[in-house]
Amino acid sequence: MKEVMAVIRMNMMNKTKEALSNAGFSSFTATGRVLGRGKGLVDYRMMKGAEEGVPEALASLGEGPRMIPKRIITLVVPEEKARLAADTIISVNKTGKPGDGKIFILPVLDAMRVRTGETGLKIL
Amino acid sequence: MKEVMAVIRMNMMNKTKEALSNAGFSSFTATGRVLGRGKGLVDYRMMKGAEEGVPEALASLGEGPRMIPKRIITLVVPEEKARLAADTIISVNKTGKPGDGKIFILPVLDAMRVRTGETGLKIL
Amino acid sequence: MKEVMAVIRMNMMNKTKEALSNAGFSSFTATGRVLGRGKGLVDYRMMKGAEEGVPEALASLGEGPRMIPKRIITLVVPEEKARLAADTIISVNKTGKPGDGKIFILPVLDAMRVRTGETGLKIL
Repeated sequence: MKEVMAVIRMNMMNKTKEALSNAGFSSFTATGRVLGRGKGLVDYRMMKGAEEGVPEALASLGEGPRMIPKRIITLVVPEEKARLAADTIISVNKTGKPGDGKIFILPVLDAMRVRTGETGLKIL
Repeated sequence: MKEVMAVIRMNMMNKTKEALSNAGFSSFTATGRVLGRGKGLVDYRMMKGAEEGVPEALASLGEGPRMIPKRIITLVVPEEKARLAADTIISVNKTGKPGDGKIFILPVLDAMRVRTGETGLKIL
Repeated sequence: MKEVMAVIRMNMMNKTKEALSNAGFSSFTATGRVLGRGKGLVDYRMMKGAEEGVPEALASLGEGPRMIPKRIITLVVPEEKARLAADTIISVNKTGKPGDGKIFILPVLDAMRVRTGETGLKIL
C-alpha cells in the first residue's frame, strides 16, 4: 500500500475531496492550514532584482523565504491505485499557475482498523 | 525503525498518550484538529435514500463527503515495537462504533537527535 | 528521494527556513503548532520524586505526560541531499538543551508537480 500526500491550494480542498470520493476513494485526512514554499512560488523578476541589489526587490523578498498557506490531503491506497489517486488530485488542482502544489508518494507497510483490529488491504 | 501514525477521535488523545507512556513509549507528536473521513463514517441509510433520489437524504449528504474532526498521534519506534505501539493505541481507542480510526505503519530510514547529532535506534 | 521531517522548537522556524533556503533547499512545508514529547523533556528529579510518592512531584507531573508545543518542517529531497538537509536543520536548532527536537528520514517513492504533471527528481 502507498500513502498519497498532496500539498494543495487552501481553496481547493472541497473540490479535491469530492473528486476523490467520486473516483472511489472514500477515506482521507485533511489538515488545516500549513505554510508551504515551492520553487514556483517565487517571483523571479523580484529575485533577479534582489540579486542585483534593487532596494524595492530586496524589501519585497524580506529576510526569509515567503511561505504561502496551503492544505495537505493524505490518503492510503492499494499500490495499484496510487496513480489514479494522484491523477484525480491533479485533474482538479491544475490551474496552470505556479503554486498548484505537489504530490508525494510514500510506501506504507500496513494499515489497521481500530474498531476491529483488522489489518491489511481489506481495510483501505 | 517504523512510524506508527494513528488517526483517532478528538477526545481520545489524553487516554492514548497515557497508555503509550505506560507501555514505555516516551516520545510522540500529536496534531491539533484534522478532518478525516473513513468508510464507516457514512450513514448508509441516507446513502441508500440519496441513491434512490429521496430529497431529504440528498440534502443531508450535501455536495462533498462529510468530514469528522480527528487528531493524529505519531511515534517512531524500533521495528519490533511497532505492533506493541499499535496494539496499545487500539486498546484504548476501540469503542466498537464506526469512527474509531485507523493506524498506518510507515518505514523510517533514520532518526537524529538535534541536540547531540546522534543517529539510529539509540535515540528512539 | 527522501522525506526529511524535523520536529523543532516553536521559535526556531524562521531561522530554520532561512538556513534551508541558503543551503539551496527551496521547497518545504511547515505545520502550525503540534504537541510533542521526547525523552529529554521530562524533569527526572520530579519523576524520581513522583515515583517515591512525593505529592508535589506527583502534582507537577499531572495525569498524562507533559506535551510541549512544537512545529514540524518537512521537505522532500534527492537521496544524496538528505544528510545535508538534516545537518542544516541541526546547525540552527542545536541549543544543547533538552527539547531541541528530532529529525526523521523517510523513504519517498515519487513526487509530482500538480501544474505540469511532471514526476521524479527534476521537480524537487
